[in-house]
Amino acid sequence: MTDSSWIAVDAMGGDEGLAVMLAGVAQAGRRFDGIRFLLVGDEAAIRAGLKAHASLSATSDVVHAPDVISGDDRPSQALRRAKTTSMGLAIDLVKQGRAAAAVSSGNTGALMAMAKLSLRTMPGIDRPALAGLMPTLGDNDTVVLDLGANTECDSRNLIQFAVMGAAYARTTLELASPRVALLNIGTEDMKGTGEIRDAAQALKEATHLPMSFVGFVEGDKLSRGHVDVIVCDGFSGNIALKTAEGTARFVADLLRRAFSSSARSKIGFLISRPATELLRHHLDPNNHNGAVFLGLNGLVVKSHGSANEAGVANAIAVAVKMVRDDLTRRIMDDLRHFEAHVPADEVA
Amino acid sequence: MTDSSWIAVDAMGGDEGLAVMLAGVAQAGRRFDGIRFLLVGDEAAIRAGLKAHASLSATSDVVHAPDVISGDDRPSQALRRAKTTSMGLAIDLVKQGRAAAAVSSGNTGALMAMAKLSLRTMPGIDRPALAGLMPTLGDNDTVVLDLGANTECDSRNLIQFAVMGAAYARTTLELASPRVALLNIGTEDMKGTGEIRDAAQALKEATHLPMSFVGFVEGDKLSRGHVDVIVCDGFSGNIALKTAEGTARFVADLLRRAFSSSARSKIGFLISRPATELLRHHLDPNNHNGAVFLGLNGLVVKSHGSANEAGVANAIAVAVKMVRDDLTRRIMDDLRHFEAHVPADEVA
Repeated sequence: MTDSSWIAVDAMGGDEGLAVMLAGVAQAGRRFDGIRFLLVGDEAAIRAGLKAHASLSATSDVVHAPDVISGDDRPSQALRRAKTTSMGLAIDLVKQGRAAAAVSSGNTGALMAMAKLSLRTMPGIDRPALAGLMPTLGDNDTVVLDLGANTECDSRNLIQFAVMGAAYARTTLELASPRVALLNIGTEDMKGTGEIRDAAQALKEATHLPMSFVGFVEGDKLSRGHVDVIVCDGFSGNIALKTAEGTARFVADLLRRAFSSSARSKIGFLISRPATELLRHHLDPNNHNGAVFLGLNGLVVKSHGSANEAGVANAIAVAVKMVRDDLTRRIMDDLRHFEAHVPADEVA
Repeated sequence: MTDSSWIAVDAMGGDEGLAVMLAGVAQAGRRFDGIRFLLVGDEAAIRAGLKAHASLSATSDVVHAPDVISGDDRPSQALRRAKTTSMGLAIDLVKQGRAAAAVSSGNTGALMAMAKLSLRTMPGIDRPALAGLMPTLGDNDTVVLDLGANTECDSRNLIQFAVMGAAYARTTLELASPRVALLNIGTEDMKGTGEIRDAAQALKEATHLPMSFVGFVEGDKLSRGHVDVIVCDGFSGNIALKTAEGTARFVADLLRRAFSSSARSKIGFLISRPATELLRHHLDPNNHNGAVFLGLNGLVVKSHGSANEAGVANAIAVAVKMVRDDLTRRIMDDLRHFEAHVPADEVA
């Protein structure tokens, strides 16, 4: 067993509490052989919680952290407490090489600030990006980045996100040459901002990379499954992801309202319950949990604050996959290939 | 009857053809007393189509236009043909004062370019915005602007959109003091771009206007119905609106797939059909049709390219409501009030 099979888990982050985190980690542990966990947080509470998980106790160590980052902490406040909080120490374990990846369900802004300061960006990357998975009608989820790490982006950022997102899709979706698109408000060449058009031009010319640039995609095509990676600035990505989540919930609420509008439709609902359960399963964010900070010298996975046991296990599965596929090295290789073929001034 | 009861309709725009446009206009005509229509397009074709609509024939005139703007025409190409196309002539009728509003289901970019060049922006408005309605779980739709007329916006644009959107909500949603929010990637003061934060500051201080500024709203709350007006730049607005449309369709497709997955669920579906029909009705974009260009010296309504008869009638109803409530004057009044209270350098 090498060091790369250790995953650091911020056991205290997340809205659902320590018990759910530990249950999720235990579930992931049963899924993967040879993976061990550094559980970071209040040592006494973790040891007490571990009594319910014999197999996890055998495959984990506890790292004590006296403090916890709360949902209200600003990134600047969080940074000052990096060395005493479960989130900060989990990231630090990655920096020290004691863990191959860190997973946290805590405050996104704090996690990003800490990860960036501690792990620093890779050579060739100006800014890290947060990449997540969106459900689609196709066989695969679609990778979307940036989801909010960078409010504003220039063309160089967008190009780097495309290269990193493609490397991530090759790993997580197991695709040889992912289809990559830029999110835009139309598909014609002249649509969108100058940054987006410049990025499109450079990506069109990057034919030597293991990805296929397919141009622009609009918001109404996000869940069609026609592309594997959707690239955008963090503002648009956050708006798109949250609008999709909100609309799915909106339609589900309307459906519930419609089904309970008459005795007849209630009966119909009961009969077709297996069908609506299938829908619920497909739309459950826990089944797409685990957003990844790409472009850092180390792997950090953000789990949804409200993730349940299965959600936490899925976020850890994302971390394991990235570790096993050596995602950081893949991204570095692709970036080198990209930059070797495109003169720097063309993408500036 | 005054001139203000004439509505100019681009009879040739839209994907569904002249017959659907005429049927939609006829339906709107039956809904409103004292409204008359200038039907703009191929005169022979329109006169032939009118044979199926006796009452519309009696309340409309035909204005011949030899040419039509297609969906592929660029705004620059369209501008050169303003004086010969059904779209250009419909707008021109508003400029001449022969019609109080123009309605078109044609190419959005062309419509915006023509409307802007022909009608010009109101005093005090730097850029017009496209405002539309989104369905919500609440009692009212929510007004969202800008939906794509301005890819990038400064704080001054956003403030003007807020004032115009509130005036529009007072008219179309019949609210005395609409709740106005800025679309953002978080609700805390420090979130988003400098433009958004500056606009929020100015709107917070504008307590003398007939609207209530409630701060930031995130993408997942768009359809909750907690706010009446959502203000954003045209890029984010377009992404949000299309993502919401696409996600609603995605969930509906998943539902269809789930319901047809077994004989049992098919039976359940048939029994609960009235419920799913209710859902379909609520989500049908035709029931929220009619986006409005705000900030011009004249009223122009954009109907969805694929609008059906009911959709066209709804877009015309939007135009009628704006004309009757004298929306252009209302917006001008609110802008004057706003500017009288906020020094220009504070909103620059």
